[in-house]
Amino acid sequence: MATLPSVSYSITVRLEVDGHGSAVGGLTSAVEHVGGVITALDVAQAGHERIRIDVTCAARDTDHAQAIVDALGAVEGVVVHKVSDRTFLMHLGGKIEMKSKVPLRNRDELSMAYTPGVARVSQAIAANPADARRLTVKRNSVAVVTDGSAVLGLGNIGPEASMPVMEGKAALFKRFADIDAWPIALDTQDVDEIVRTVQVIAPGFGGVNLEDISAPRCFEVEARLRELLDIPVFHDDQHGTAIVVLAALKNALRVVGKDLGGVRIAMSGAGAAGTAILKLLMHAGAKHIVVCDVHGAVHKGRDDLDPNLEWIAANTNPEGYGGDLRGAVDGADVFIGVSAPNVLGGEDIAEMNDDAIIFALANPDPEVDPDVARLHASVVATGRSDYPNQINNVLVFPGFFRGLLDAQSDHVDSDMMVAAADAIADAVTDDELGPHYIIPSVFHTNLSKSVAAAVRDVAVRGGHGRAED
Amino acid sequence: MATLPSVSYSITVRLEVDGHGSAVGGLTSAVEHVGGVITALDVAQAGHERIRIDVTCAARDTDHAQAIVDALGAVEGVVVHKVSDRTFLMHLGGKIEMKSKVPLRNRDELSMAYTPGVARVSQAIAANPADARRLTVKRNSVAVVTDGSAVLGLGNIGPEASMPVMEGKAALFKRFADIDAWPIALDTQDVDEIVRTVQVIAPGFGGVNLEDISAPRCFEVEARLRELLDIPVFHDDQHGTAIVVLAALKNALRVVGKDLGGVRIAMSGAGAAGTAILKLLMHAGAKHIVVCDVHGAVHKGRDDLDPNLEWIAANTNPEGYGGDLRGAVDGADVFIGVSAPNVLGGEDIAEMNDDAIIFALANPDPEVDPDVARLHASVVATGRSDYPNQINNVLVFPGFFRGLLDAQSDHVDSDMMVAAADAIADAVTDDELGPHYIIPSVFHTNLSKSVAAAVRDVAVRGGHGRAED
Repeated sequence: MATLPSVSYSITVRLEVDGHGSAVGGLTSAVEHVGGVITALDVAQAGHERIRIDVTCAARDTDHAQAIVDALGAVEGVVVHKVSDRTFLMHLGGKIEMKSKVPLRNRDELSMAYTPGVARVSQAIAANPADARRLTVKRNSVAVVTDGSAVLGLGNIGPEASMPVMEGKAALFKRFADIDAWPIALDTQDVDEIVRTVQVIAPGFGGVNLEDISAPRCFEVEARLRELLDIPVFHDDQHGTAIVVLAALKNALRVVGKDLGGVRIAMSGAGAAGTAILKLLMHAGAKHIVVCDVHGAVHKGRDDLDPNLEWIAANTNPEGYGGDLRGAVDGADVFIGVSAPNVLGGEDIAEMNDDAIIFALANPDPEVDPDVARLHASVVATGRSDYPNQINNVLVFPGFFRGLLDAQSDHVDSDMMVAAADAIADAVTDDELGPHYIIPSVFHTNLSKSVAAAVRDVAVRGGHGRAED
Repeated sequence: MATLPSVSYSITVRLEVDGHGSAVGGLTSAVEHVGGVITALDVAQAGHERIRIDVTCAARDTDHAQAIVDALGAVEGVVVHKVSDRTFLMHLGGKIEMKSKVPLRNRDELSMAYTPGVARVSQAIAANPADARRLTVKRNSVAVVTDGSAVLGLGNIGPEASMPVMEGKAALFKRFADIDAWPIALDTQDVDEIVRTVQVIAPGFGGVNLEDISAPRCFEVEARLRELLDIPVFHDDQHGTAIVVLAALKNALRVVGKDLGGVRIAMSGAGAAGTAILKLLMHAGAKHIVVCDVHGAVHKGRDDLDPNLEWIAANTNPEGYGGDLRGAVDGADVFIGVSAPNVLGGEDIAEMNDDAIIFALANPDPEVDPDVARLHASVVATGRSDYPNQINNVLVFPGFFRGLLDAQSDHVDSDMMVAAADAIADAVTDDELGPHYIIPSVFHTNLSKSVAAAVRDVAVRGGHGRAED
């Protein structure tokens, strides 16, 4: 599993080269020689003596980017000027903004959008609070809330450093479902304070997307907020992941002709994502599941169980298997990993049942090398975009919240999640379905609309939302 | 002082009229007869038998709008169909939205704006938190925070009903200073909770604009947040009003040739706005001020003083005047009212010094009828847009925050406020200055830029901010 140069680590190097010599020709081979990929070469300024050139290259990481710059500088007749990083350039000044939807060109427009005209609109909402969903941004807004405690794979980096991720999330909400999300990065990691803060700021929002809050605190934060608020609360790291895993698993089982209720499933990881996947799979009909954490299989005989693990022990692993992950995988039909890199090898996958399904979702390095797993399993999926079958939350949360907002839903439940998973699974037609295509692309046309419609139907049918005005 | 029909109360009435008769001609006179103003008349559909017409009219209030509809319905051959309210139409679905500034057209762009590329940006901020001002929306964002306790003149209407006002404020921030403001409507009116909530959500914002929080709680909320946060906190109802009053008063004094340090000032109102005006006028050099509330002049001898009134008693009214507002106005050069309608009459204004200045800012009905005041005073200003000299916060807060954000200021102080007032006052040239033009229009070109530059200079000079990158 080689790491390839990626545009997510792309640099632009401004060079000055000798106009007479053959320096330009040497640039491409110099970059290729150190394993970089030139994606653009623009002449910024040409003269008889000197030529200024911007060379844009994809690199693997920081050291590799420096190696590319060094290689360019070593070409005869080349002087390296500025090196800029395309990802950082894209983030300068932030990735989101607030826009007014109303014109404010003159006094009349001002007097309708603000005082005195706005007073009548406020009075209408005071008389009928439900009108806030009709006359304010609450109709379409989601608070993207984090405490910065478990940001991507970076850990507890705090609220300020989490903002680029939350802004990215907000941008995705807009791009895929036309939702107005705003990041709220909290300067506390105390459960009581997180819950109370979100409750206090809730009136202006139509939904809450919890993000990158570490386990086990995330479970209590979510459960308490769902109890307190009359708007839906969704922890994407848990449920977004669970929904897309269920969708992908349904299609993987279609590929190998097995049934969710009949397969034996071994899981690695009992954190936020693992627990949510487990519960949703069970809600959808899975029956034979063993969950492992760093200490091995979770079972009733262990004396190190927190409340979450206790629940898992009480509701899975009926045979009380007490061994390690390798033993749990032995003879299983499905492996689902949301844990750590390289906890399994090819020899472990070889011990699984025929037509094994592997979801190795640790990022960026999966639980088992997908190239190796593929030698022994029928379907392999990862969280990476450079392999087939990427399991990606972006398939879920925009459409899911679109459905919740359209239904003016007051909550989230497992039936909605299963409906969303079905909508995603069904986006892959029988003709398209195969070992390398169990899940649609994030750019699949209309996927978020299908997910939204499925969620909205469940919400309206359950009486927890209402059809659009 | 008659209330005129206003576009802020504008209705569109869809009519069907007889195509043969003279009904169309009767529409205009019918509306005019009941005092309405037709601003548009659009034929929506024309046929031989019937014509559909949309008539848009400005009305004074709800009853007047109904009277107009009734008058239209009474015209022979006219059938009234739908009546829509232009202000409500403008508010449908809310007035603001979130926009992404980055393209997300393909996988490469996704991988730079979100995972995996965004991880490096988050790591950079974790290593150097000040970079949040460079790489996230914090650079340009303001939280518009209210508890809904004192919204416009509507009182304690709660957080949901305050949202249209907060969205309007956000739209004005964008329109006049390209600032990304987001409304945060709080479901609490407890001072401790407001303070803690704002502190907890602060990391993602570059400034806090407190809005429509009732006195005296607003004083404590602001003071404590200023102590706790490293971003500027500004209560617009207090300081926005104070700054624009100081600007207008400076120019009014230019008109009559008097000096701020020498004039006698009588004030009506000791709430949020009144107290802030008082303090800023004193900071700018005013010396002879008597403040009145509903119980008369504030002085040391009263036994009903809260901490705020105690401060006023200790720092104003050195002669210990203990009478009512009328007595305070007698012989004064300047009257400033931020209190209640019609507390003074023409006979009171007549007792003021020659070349009196009247700022009667209660909205919509001023402390004294401006038409009457004008008979006895040299300069009259109100908060209304349908009289000359409108004292309007919109002149202040966009440019003020622009300056704070550009300077990356960590606080707000009175020197910045005086500088902003000077910038506003100076926008009226000597040639333009006169009794009816002491303050620029909200649409004055570049005003917010001048205010921003003035604030930024003070912030940078004081070492509390830094010049732009």
